[in-house]
Amino acid sequence: MRIYDIIQKKKQGEALTKEEIEFFVDGFTSGNIHDYQASALMMAIWFNGMTDEEITDLTLAMAHSGDMIDLSGIDGFTVDKHSTGGVGDKTTLIVAPIVAACGGKVAKMSGRGLGHTGGTIDKLESILGFDTALSKEDFVKTVNEHGLCVVGQTGNLAPADKKLYALRDVTATVDSIPLIASSIMSKKLAAGSQGIVLDVKTGSGAFMKTVEASSELAQKMVSIGNSAGRKTVALITDMDVPLGNAIGNSLEVIEAINVLNGNQKDDLFEVSVALASNMLSLVHSKSVEECEKMTLEAVGNGSALQKLKAMVTAQGGNGEWIETPDLFPKAEHSFEIICENDGFISFMDAQKIGTASVVLGAGRESKDDEIDFSAGILLRKKTGDKVQKGDILATLYSNKKDSFSSAEKLLKGALEFSSDYTKTNNAVIKVIK
Amino acid sequence: MRIYDIIQKKKQGEALTKEEIEFFVDGFTSGNIHDYQASALMMAIWFNGMTDEEITDLTLAMAHSGDMIDLSGIDGFTVDKHSTGGVGDKTTLIVAPIVAACGGKVAKMSGRGLGHTGGTIDKLESILGFDTALSKEDFVKTVNEHGLCVVGQTGNLAPADKKLYALRDVTATVDSIPLIASSIMSKKLAAGSQGIVLDVKTGSGAFMKTVEASSELAQKMVSIGNSAGRKTVALITDMDVPLGNAIGNSLEVIEAINVLNGNQKDDLFEVSVALASNMLSLVHSKSVEECEKMTLEAVGNGSALQKLKAMVTAQGGNGEWIETPDLFPKAEHSFEIICENDGFISFMDAQKIGTASVVLGAGRESKDDEIDFSAGILLRKKTGDKVQKGDILATLYSNKKDSFSSAEKLLKGALEFSSDYTKTNNAVIKVIK
Repeated sequence: MRIYDIIQKKKQGEALTKEEIEFFVDGFTSGNIHDYQASALMMAIWFNGMTDEEITDLTLAMAHSGDMIDLSGIDGFTVDKHSTGGVGDKTTLIVAPIVAACGGKVAKMSGRGLGHTGGTIDKLESILGFDTALSKEDFVKTVNEHGLCVVGQTGNLAPADKKLYALRDVTATVDSIPLIASSIMSKKLAAGSQGIVLDVKTGSGAFMKTVEASSELAQKMVSIGNSAGRKTVALITDMDVPLGNAIGNSLEVIEAINVLNGNQKDDLFEVSVALASNMLSLVHSKSVEECEKMTLEAVGNGSALQKLKAMVTAQGGNGEWIETPDLFPKAEHSFEIICENDGFISFMDAQKIGTASVVLGAGRESKDDEIDFSAGILLRKKTGDKVQKGDILATLYSNKKDSFSSAEKLLKGALEFSSDYTKTNNAVIKVIK
Repeated sequence: MRIYDIIQKKKQGEALTKEEIEFFVDGFTSGNIHDYQASALMMAIWFNGMTDEEITDLTLAMAHSGDMIDLSGIDGFTVDKHSTGGVGDKTTLIVAPIVAACGGKVAKMSGRGLGHTGGTIDKLESILGFDTALSKEDFVKTVNEHGLCVVGQTGNLAPADKKLYALRDVTATVDSIPLIASSIMSKKLAAGSQGIVLDVKTGSGAFMKTVEASSELAQKMVSIGNSAGRKTVALITDMDVPLGNAIGNSLEVIEAINVLNGNQKDDLFEVSVALASNMLSLVHSKSVEECEKMTLEAVGNGSALQKLKAMVTAQGGNGEWIETPDLFPKAEHSFEIICENDGFISFMDAQKIGTASVVLGAGRESKDDEIDFSAGILLRKKTGDKVQKGDILATLYSNKKDSFSSAEKLLKGALEFSSDYTKTNNAVIKVIK
């Protein structure tokens, strides 16, 4: 078998066999196949696509290129959640406790933030003492004891995907649905959970800008997951506005606590309930409607919040901060964005708002940047809201006072106004099974 | 400017600007742009093509990436010929002397053979003492004195093309008309002649298998040449059969001498006359018909053969071999291929016949192989010929007796027979100006 012939075949629009895909993934991971051949193949795939069978073969080959996490030591049904990335997305902090409170097992590996999107690991590390680098044994033990544990990615998970993604990133071949689907799912399969709920974001703050593209991606991922023997469901959710009101690490943890306390019934609450209900539906093989009842009960009776506190404590964090969010350190400076218009907010560019939060110190522009956990944005108005001149649109928080002017400019540039009310999208657009 | 954006732009089907193309060529040649980015761009070009303007910009950028040969020291109009490569193609040895005899100046750089196609430099080196590595000064001096000189490629000609071609060769991106056209023409422009006649081969022994593809390639190259201020014409010629009867280095020189002696009026003669007439038409700005008369005269009165002898002598070769071809050393062994059928030859796979000659020792399978100058094939029958059981189809020559059996198998596998006469293609299919 020769990589030349594989490139040639895909270039001419033919489907690759399982053996050819494995030959490529093995050869590329070991360095026997050159980067310049892999990038030519990626570009040919960008143009000619892949069949569902090819996508599944590619995903499995990449998943098996490194460690396959063994969660068999966990009693019960393990269920994972994956978001394609958005601004203000703190749903893991809400749904993992709900699912654990309702009998599911959430053994989750999460990532750090980069660019305009945050990462769950950074958010959790805003809690004093929280340890995201547990041993494999402590990870399994915590899940068995409390039903949930969230750690940073450990081990050598899907190294083929890691190498291939880095190459795609510099050769303009990221935006290919078969390649995105296989990249995400290779890591999810390697991460070991029996059930997977995918939160595919769509809109201005998401990688996929249209519902059509998001649905196609979701469909491919569901198909891969099911083919690989994992129960898989996808939700298409709105990312035309940031989710909830808080953007920034400790601000988002505090907002998650607020939702778990039952005090916030907005888009964030709606998406969280949908995700938790779908996860529980996989866990218990019950209808989503039945599971939604369990979800609302777990919020209503405080059991979900107690799960979050239990996890924080088990992972070395100060559990009191969960019950008394005032204990989170505050940023030294704050700044209010004042509305200059009368009318309605007709559009918010979520990506620009995410970038504004990075400017304030809440995120990273490059991998080694340090994060200011207390920095961020609280949105006071969102798309569809009526506003008047002089209203506070948002409050900025930072320890770098001089960051406010450029953050303000970014944030104002992210907003559009109109004299008429603009209908907003549903928070949950559709479910793909 | 970033190479990422250039790849992205081409991937989305947009035309690149002159500045973007120059940025790519410069960066790739200097190593600032990685191979894996160049190969992704090549694949995007394979899919989306290039406009005539882009092709010209790419060609000029590659031509200027190294030395631009200065032929201004030559008195008179310099005219070059380029063949896209075929089997048994010894036309340079025929047309260069004719053009020189008729007042044109042929200052030609030629290549060596690789795979199933031979190279003019190898053919000339079958003449004892012939030096293909003259200094720039001796090259120009020989052309001024005798009207012609053929040397191996010297200097740093179109290094960007050399590097890019090597990359395309291993990433399945060779077969792109814009890339082939710019590759060929970058070297031709750098080689400095004022006029260029392109011999674009079509058929089983050629890279381009159809007249349509050959014509498209020819059209692009003529357009590039003219845009760059060189008088350029292309001939589409048949390579469904080897050209002439001889394949192998000294055998081909002997056949060229035979044509220049006026003793062979076949497809080889016809293609040579067409090429020489078109070259002279550029030199003298006269009609091809008028120049054809000059061509036939130069053959008829022996002046063309004398030019070949003069060049051989000037380049250190034994000129007597040109007048007495029996002086060329013969291969130790010969072998006759006997016909097993009655009927007509309906098809010859020229590429397989070229490969058979390589097996006999006449060519190289890899770059460092040594050539046996006396080895090769004399075809006794060609497509369209009537044959009878027992006829000699071809004679094989080699110093390796044990190569005959596999060469015989290849050659027999290259022939197809039918009971009816099959019309053969015209040797010269069309002219593109």
